[in-house]
Amino acid sequence: MRFTREASPPGTRGRIGSLAIGGKQIATPAFMPVGTRASVKTLTPWDLEEIGVGILLANTYHLYLRPGYETIAALGGLHRFMSWSGAILTDSGGYQVFSLADLRKVEPDGVRFRSHLDGSAHFFTPEVSTEVQEALGSDIVMAFDICTPYPCPIEEAAAQMRQTLRWAERSRRRFLATPTHDRAQFGIVQGGVHPELRRECAGRLVEMGFEGYALGGLAVGEPAEMRWEMVSRGDSDLPEDRPRYLMGVGQPEDIVHAVHRGVDMFDCVLPTRGARHGTVYTLRGRYSIKARMYAEDVGPLDPECDCRVCRSVSRAYVRHLFQVGEFLGARLLSHHNIRAYLRLMEAIRGSLREGSFAAEMQGMLSRLSMVVERKGVERPRFE
Amino acid sequence: MRFTREASPPGTRGRIGSLAIGGKQIATPAFMPVGTRASVKTLTPWDLEEIGVGILLANTYHLYLRPGYETIAALGGLHRFMSWSGAILTDSGGYQVFSLADLRKVEPDGVRFRSHLDGSAHFFTPEVSTEVQEALGSDIVMAFDICTPYPCPIEEAAAQMRQTLRWAERSRRRFLATPTHDRAQFGIVQGGVHPELRRECAGRLVEMGFEGYALGGLAVGEPAEMRWEMVSRGDSDLPEDRPRYLMGVGQPEDIVHAVHRGVDMFDCVLPTRGARHGTVYTLRGRYSIKARMYAEDVGPLDPECDCRVCRSVSRAYVRHLFQVGEFLGARLLSHHNIRAYLRLMEAIRGSLREGSFAAEMQGMLSRLSMVVERKGVERPRFE
Repeated sequence: MRFTREASPPGTRGRIGSLAIGGKQIATPAFMPVGTRASVKTLTPWDLEEIGVGILLANTYHLYLRPGYETIAALGGLHRFMSWSGAILTDSGGYQVFSLADLRKVEPDGVRFRSHLDGSAHFFTPEVSTEVQEALGSDIVMAFDICTPYPCPIEEAAAQMRQTLRWAERSRRRFLATPTHDRAQFGIVQGGVHPELRRECAGRLVEMGFEGYALGGLAVGEPAEMRWEMVSRGDSDLPEDRPRYLMGVGQPEDIVHAVHRGVDMFDCVLPTRGARHGTVYTLRGRYSIKARMYAEDVGPLDPECDCRVCRSVSRAYVRHLFQVGEFLGARLLSHHNIRAYLRLMEAIRGSLREGSFAAEMQGMLSRLSMVVERKGVERPRFE
Repeated sequence: MRFTREASPPGTRGRIGSLAIGGKQIATPAFMPVGTRASVKTLTPWDLEEIGVGILLANTYHLYLRPGYETIAALGGLHRFMSWSGAILTDSGGYQVFSLADLRKVEPDGVRFRSHLDGSAHFFTPEVSTEVQEALGSDIVMAFDICTPYPCPIEEAAAQMRQTLRWAERSRRRFLATPTHDRAQFGIVQGGVHPELRRECAGRLVEMGFEGYALGGLAVGEPAEMRWEMVSRGDSDLPEDRPRYLMGVGQPEDIVHAVHRGVDMFDCVLPTRGARHGTVYTLRGRYSIKARMYAEDVGPLDPECDCRVCRSVSRAYVRHLFQVGEFLGARLLSHHNIRAYLRLMEAIRGSLREGSFAAEMQGMLSRLSMVVERKGVERPRFE
């Protein structure tokens, strides 16, 4: 993997660059749609290509259970399985197994857990997680970690951070044991909302020399100011020349805030999950297509959008599909919403490149939050 | 509407021709996918175009209730509402309101019914049905009828057939009251499985001079031989120069049988409904993609198919989507299955055109029924 950065824009820690990996070129800051079970819900690989997606995220835990990583490996890897020619980042599975609560037990060596599907017993270690991700053929492999929840006593956060470091070291060793390949591995910074713990974690991870770094344990319920403080500190704790990935973030406004603080990569289920609930994302806020007021609205979902859905069908039609429970509604909104996120990333990159991001950020943020859905009756005000 | 027929192929009553309507040209025999609520389930208009669909069916009853025909009319009609540039045939709503059982009452003037959604009271007459279909902007409008169930005492079938004739006359009068337009109206032959009733009905409808005729009240549970006898008789009861439409039919084999007996148009929910249950249609029979044996099958759904799904993803991937409950599975199969039906129609038209249909029909039928799904373990044998 090669991460190239262009000149630093003024007045912001925001970065503009690109990731070259597995023969693909991804402009950063980049957004990765989530394809949990080898499918970005409702969309085909050719949709994603048309929308302009360069990289997506897939979930190791889910694919490990079904169809099984040996199956995917036997079928030629996840890219071939999904028929996806872009890049793929896989998470480590740590977050999911840790979320199993009563079904899992954290041991020094790894996490013992029972499948949420059939109760079968499994044991995830840093080595297993890394091997599974490699078997999937992931372009960017994540180190196995413990995602510290919020709130969490400092002692526990410290213990989990140290566990994460020991596992990061083992993940790294296992990753490097595979003969050279065009893959990258990211270490994950934990430490809860405690700057000194996060700094210690970042410092040790940097010594291990990962190709990139993720900010973990954020957007898990902590206050926004706390999150942005942690992200800002991550910026100074991590090397300039490696990509940084803020896991699971977020709303469009969050992405702008994080870019300003030096983050290069994002993933989030919001555009697709929101789609299934009727939420339309635009660069002027989001709204619910289910609202009565759209029943006879012949306009597109977003008059500023260039996606095929906006070029083809009206709000009235999409609302009708939701009213009658036709699945096509969720598909059309998923398509549009991912395009909306990518258009946001394009706008962000454009203003970073032109050096105007710092000046434009406030306007961008106020437009994005201008018409947050409230009782489903407001609508974006397109000029 | 103009219906043009090519020279009659030898050894069959099968017809090859084309329908010119609303600026569109549709080769016959033609299959119409069903877009009940203004959506061919899971698919976009651009999918349908790519698949090669020329005409689809939409349901008057459902659209009358939601979003309401005035709404669709205000939005510029069903074509514009759905963003569909092909042709549209609408049913009369008769079948649906008649199916409401306890919620409806047949009166001499029409059918009084309560909405299955909210219990609201409505009254469908031949005039209302025709006006609603015209408001929707349908290219082919169906006369309002009573679909006689099977079995049904001959006296009742006769009474329903006469009611259908009275309503056909009123439907026709209402249709002709609209100034000239490029729309067609089809009369529907009823009479149950009683040849003399069906002949009487066909004769009277022909006197009314519809642009085309439908064979109704078939494929409602009667034995297959009875159905084919009724279809064959329809062939001699109806004028050669008007299209004939066998409503709600059917399995691919049924379409071959009906074409042989002079039918030009078909509609059926099977390709899309089957898709949602994992059924894959091919010209060599159907099978369930859910079967364990496809778990590591890297081949396409149908090696002979030219659709984008078959060109892109494997059986193993589609099976996985069904296993984990990802909606994309139903979408991919809907796309493929409709293409399979259209490929069947292309094959039928090709052999009719070359005069080889009669000779090839048995082979076609035996291939289509060669591997009917049985316990989900058989698979088509592609040579």
